[in-house]
Amino acid sequence: MAGTPPRSPLAPEQFPNLPRIGGVSFSAVAAGVKYQGRTDVMLAQIAPGSSIAGVFTKSSTRAAPVLDCQAKIGGDSDAGAAVIVNSGNANAFTGKNGIEATRAVTNAVASALDLPETRVFSSSTGVIGEPLAHDRITAKIVELQATLDEDAIEAAAEAIRTTDTFAKGAGAEINLHGSKVSIAGIAKGSGMIAPDMATMLVYIFTDAQIERADLQAMVSELNEVTFNSITVDSDTSTSDSLLIAATGASGVDVTNNADFKTALHGVMKDLALQVVRDGEGATKLVEIQVTGALNDAEARTHGLSIANSPLVKTAIAGEDPNWGRIVMAIGKSGATADRDLLSIRFGDVRVADKGWVCPDYHEDDGATYMKQSNLVIGVDLGIGSGKSTVWTCDLTHGYITINADYRS
Amino acid sequence: MAGTPPRSPLAPEQFPNLPRIGGVSFSAVAAGVKYQGRTDVMLAQIAPGSSIAGVFTKSSTRAAPVLDCQAKIGGDSDAGAAVIVNSGNANAFTGKNGIEATRAVTNAVASALDLPETRVFSSSTGVIGEPLAHDRITAKIVELQATLDEDAIEAAAEAIRTTDTFAKGAGAEINLHGSKVSIAGIAKGSGMIAPDMATMLVYIFTDAQIERADLQAMVSELNEVTFNSITVDSDTSTSDSLLIAATGASGVDVTNNADFKTALHGVMKDLALQVVRDGEGATKLVEIQVTGALNDAEARTHGLSIANSPLVKTAIAGEDPNWGRIVMAIGKSGATADRDLLSIRFGDVRVADKGWVCPDYHEDDGATYMKQSNLVIGVDLGIGSGKSTVWTCDLTHGYITINADYRS
Repeated sequence: MAGTPPRSPLAPEQFPNLPRIGGVSFSAVAAGVKYQGRTDVMLAQIAPGSSIAGVFTKSSTRAAPVLDCQAKIGGDSDAGAAVIVNSGNANAFTGKNGIEATRAVTNAVASALDLPETRVFSSSTGVIGEPLAHDRITAKIVELQATLDEDAIEAAAEAIRTTDTFAKGAGAEINLHGSKVSIAGIAKGSGMIAPDMATMLVYIFTDAQIERADLQAMVSELNEVTFNSITVDSDTSTSDSLLIAATGASGVDVTNNADFKTALHGVMKDLALQVVRDGEGATKLVEIQVTGALNDAEARTHGLSIANSPLVKTAIAGEDPNWGRIVMAIGKSGATADRDLLSIRFGDVRVADKGWVCPDYHEDDGATYMKQSNLVIGVDLGIGSGKSTVWTCDLTHGYITINADYRS
Repeated sequence: MAGTPPRSPLAPEQFPNLPRIGGVSFSAVAAGVKYQGRTDVMLAQIAPGSSIAGVFTKSSTRAAPVLDCQAKIGGDSDAGAAVIVNSGNANAFTGKNGIEATRAVTNAVASALDLPETRVFSSSTGVIGEPLAHDRITAKIVELQATLDEDAIEAAAEAIRTTDTFAKGAGAEINLHGSKVSIAGIAKGSGMIAPDMATMLVYIFTDAQIERADLQAMVSELNEVTFNSITVDSDTSTSDSLLIAATGASGVDVTNNADFKTALHGVMKDLALQVVRDGEGATKLVEIQVTGALNDAEARTHGLSIANSPLVKTAIAGEDPNWGRIVMAIGKSGATADRDLLSIRFGDVRVADKGWVCPDYHEDDGATYMKQSNLVIGVDLGIGSGKSTVWTCDLTHGYITINADYRS
């Protein structure tokens, strides 16, 4: 990573104060996997009796650690658990070598922390197709173990950055049945590591008490409306992973609890939008609200077609209220649309109504609206009651500069 | 259109010498639909007895003239025919107004040339959502009719440009059964008209003799491997149209004739690649050859996933032999792939073989290859015998500059 990229103009002011999660501790070290002079490996130790669930990329070329996590994630266990993550090398497209590297790292952690191998989860993010120098990681396990600390979650968030321009965290505290339940999560993503693709990694911890299967169902459902509803450039990583651990330390059962689900949704959405805010070259955060579609799935198809359209995204970069390109993106999406029922708005500015530009729409109003950093594009198909919200960023010269640079 | 954009570095040296097609004549005028000081309407008159076929955008928000062409195209007729095309305004998202504008233009041509209204086909390309000033076009029908000329095809190609950086033409002459059969085609596309999307229009003429249904079947099949296999930015126009007219003037029946089909394929591929060569900001023409897929459809899905990936396209712009991004694009495509059977090459440079970088691959070889203007990326899935070839261009700062400029 040559130099530090400037912090995204859409970044939050600072890393949030996250609640301490009983039963989870963190550490980070500089192992020199690829980067020099910074931390690049994090470890999280999770207490016995915790429930662990996860969501992973559907890529058919997914990386070795992803396959390893998927093989392990469905198992119930009263044993403790651990998560180890390195940045700098994705351990993807590395054949048998990759499987062996993953095994070397997770087995070393299992041995040091006295855990079953099936309870050690790992992720790798960075360059593709190069062997992972796993000995550099295993050489640091003792140090990682010695420095585990309940308050070190920000250090963990820093260690998993590639070219993210800021470390990403979000948390929540709620009162349930007279007790406090806490959630803390970290993520990396949308920064770019020369020469690879954006990769999203998310780790969420809570002291709530919930069975693994219930936790998995809740996080899978919430994932659809948070991390699976964001797009920076339509490209899907080979390493995308989300892991959540519920330690039960609060003693509060949150099975089917609506308040907990709302709080978890908030943390996941916050982290997801931070990933978009750090989208390569991003200068605008764009929420696309689709209503009136045939059903929710078709609303989502329209929303993603708009959010992924290079022509829509470059228009936003140019602060151009170019609703013609939105019509185009709806038309090409493959989902049901009737040109003469279609309505479009920018924030509260009504642009087109039932297939025709609004008589009271003035381009100056649209142009003024587009100058904001946070934009809402509303599309109503006028057909049914399906709805969906997706988030994206604009497509700027910054994206080209970051991604067209030749590898050094 | 503010100023003339620089000619694409991938443009052919000059407009080709196209064969005269018996039974077809052309004219072009400056009607001032939007642009000033240049031609913007073309007319083609086609002799009685010609067969006419077409292929149109599948966009659900397609423009009024596209809907009108689709309603007319299936009809057999011994009457003559005409094609009228304007640039500067797409007559799209214009409601009833758009239907009336299309009718006004086609009826005026029908009346002037003494044709049934059902035999006048029209296209419009340019700004979306603004009413088409159809009276400016109808006021020029007399002049268009008076200047019809068998040798004016280049003038027609010039008149349909929006911000295309060059006029596009391709032709072929073949000998069949001792007689000469000719094909001449023109196209516009991938130039950008502030404030709208790229739009592809294609008109092909031949003096071959063939029934409408046979011509339609042949052009539909060839369209899949030519115009439907190119992508500049994954965005689909509301106006894409291809029309072909076979006048029969050569007296040569080409029904199911393989030589004619090969010649037509050549003309269509030539025009399609000219559209990519004029892709916004393009500096590289990229052919993606996918083999070994489960079937041809899956090969095409993989090919388009690579061709539309912003990360692959920016890597090509940066002359970066970044095969990791190709692995990523294959993984996200949704079609079948096995990471450990996948092989990749840049031209003749073997990069990865069965899921692992080739031991004799040197990055310098890949980097040297990527400096060329015309690139071939080969991907073998190692699964079946499905294959497909698609074409794209790189994604550069030029694309952002062209498309993020605010409308003036």
